[in-house]
Amino acid sequence: MERPIGIFDSGIGGLTVLKEIINAMPGEDTIYLGDTARVPYGTKSAETVTKYSFENARFLLKFNIKLLVVACNTASAYCLPQLKKALQIPVVGVIEPGAKKAVEITKTKRVGVIGTEGTIKSGAYFDAIKSIDSSIAVFTQPCPLFVPLAEEGWTNNQMAHLTAQTYLNDIKKNWIDTLILGCTHYPLLKEVITEVMGNKTMLIDSGHETAAEVFRCLAEKNLIKIISSKESSHRFFVTDSPDRFKQVGSRFMGASLRNIELVNLENL
Amino acid sequence: MERPIGIFDSGIGGLTVLKEIINAMPGEDTIYLGDTARVPYGTKSAETVTKYSFENARFLLKFNIKLLVVACNTASAYCLPQLKKALQIPVVGVIEPGAKKAVEITKTKRVGVIGTEGTIKSGAYFDAIKSIDSSIAVFTQPCPLFVPLAEEGWTNNQMAHLTAQTYLNDIKKNWIDTLILGCTHYPLLKEVITEVMGNKTMLIDSGHETAAEVFRCLAEKNLIKIISSKESSHRFFVTDSPDRFKQVGSRFMGASLRNIELVNLENL
Repeated sequence: MERPIGIFDSGIGGLTVLKEIINAMPGEDTIYLGDTARVPYGTKSAETVTKYSFENARFLLKFNIKLLVVACNTASAYCLPQLKKALQIPVVGVIEPGAKKAVEITKTKRVGVIGTEGTIKSGAYFDAIKSIDSSIAVFTQPCPLFVPLAEEGWTNNQMAHLTAQTYLNDIKKNWIDTLILGCTHYPLLKEVITEVMGNKTMLIDSGHETAAEVFRCLAEKNLIKIISSKESSHRFFVTDSPDRFKQVGSRFMGASLRNIELVNLENL
Repeated sequence: MERPIGIFDSGIGGLTVLKEIINAMPGEDTIYLGDTARVPYGTKSAETVTKYSFENARFLLKFNIKLLVVACNTASAYCLPQLKKALQIPVVGVIEPGAKKAVEITKTKRVGVIGTEGTIKSGAYFDAIKSIDSSIAVFTQPCPLFVPLAEEGWTNNQMAHLTAQTYLNDIKKNWIDTLILGCTHYPLLKEVITEVMGNKTMLIDSGHETAAEVFRCLAEKNLIKIISSKESSHRFFVTDSPDRFKQVGSRFMGASLRNIELVNLENL
């Protein structure tokens, strides 16, 4: 199958998911849409996020994608079931894979979740974990400053440390052994989060788990690309400020970004 | 004149300007529009911010406003001349009043400006100051973390201090005696900014200067409201998440907010 995988996020964060997908399936072609004109989704209402998500999906469907990844926790929290129902192709969100993994590895049956205000308020991780194993205790904490810290590149300085300490202090007291990084920006802060939580707390990177889920899904439906000698292609679309996306995004991908195009979703 | 003053901002920050307007002219009626569905403007392109600003203005004009305040530095930086040209009523931005005041009070002729990435990149303060007095040296510094710190209410803790130190360290070395707070969120961080800059640096609150400019403008055009026994009315519209606006906004206004209505600008 030569059809690409479509991925959208509210902005730059989803690149950490894309990176994991490319690592796991280097032969696949991808098309990434960052809705940088309307970022952030984390403080917006469910109605607004749902509307934007459907517009993003509609744009990606024009490229004949074989699978859609909703690489945004807020969008996954608010409208994944609706997207799954409306679309003819498989849709993978970033919440279920992380929740599943947490249930699988927790020994103390005490799991923490950190994310944006929207993700935490939606209760999506709480519900996802409880629906697999209702005996697991779930503790949540919104960490709004983590996103701007990651975008500013302040991921391992004193501000990052203090912020992590402030946010994680309470959740740490709950004796959790597993912490879900419920926002695609947070893998950039893994180091400081580990330092605050200690080595014994297992961190779950939703992007990594999502890539594994994408692979399972493609394999199951026989949609894996037959690897040819042709290099895989990775296209990027943004709804605003391609320069900033290129600059900040390169830090998120750990590689410089090419093929970034500006698109206006409202004129489609 | 019983017509209200219209004010828009990308979100919550403009409330610090509204607060100053109400303090200066307690009899006036006001209508505030916070474009919370599309906040922030600071990282968006000039084209996008201009488009949004015209939509915001169009909405406020429906209320027969007598003057429009663009209480957003990014929007003032990108499209004030266009708005002034297109509208039949006076339009006041937040940049010129702050720039004027800085020129007026600096003794060393060395002025600093801090703001969002968009405001600083636009060069609007630089240009505004230089056009009044080209002999003044202007030093600028974007401070992206200040907005989320203010919204989180972390305005006087260790994170706020460290962040201010990091951002202001370089600009401080330039021997400025005047610093323009070129973002409507920054007045909330006045205390830590003063601590870092020292007592001898004069801080200019653009909102305060803008309110003075609004008063001058209304007086000049004979548009001041004749104060009746009727209480002044203050209405608030947001494009998303009125609950968050109420909660965070109350901190910005220093008073609880009532009459917050949700509006969809796309259906107008």
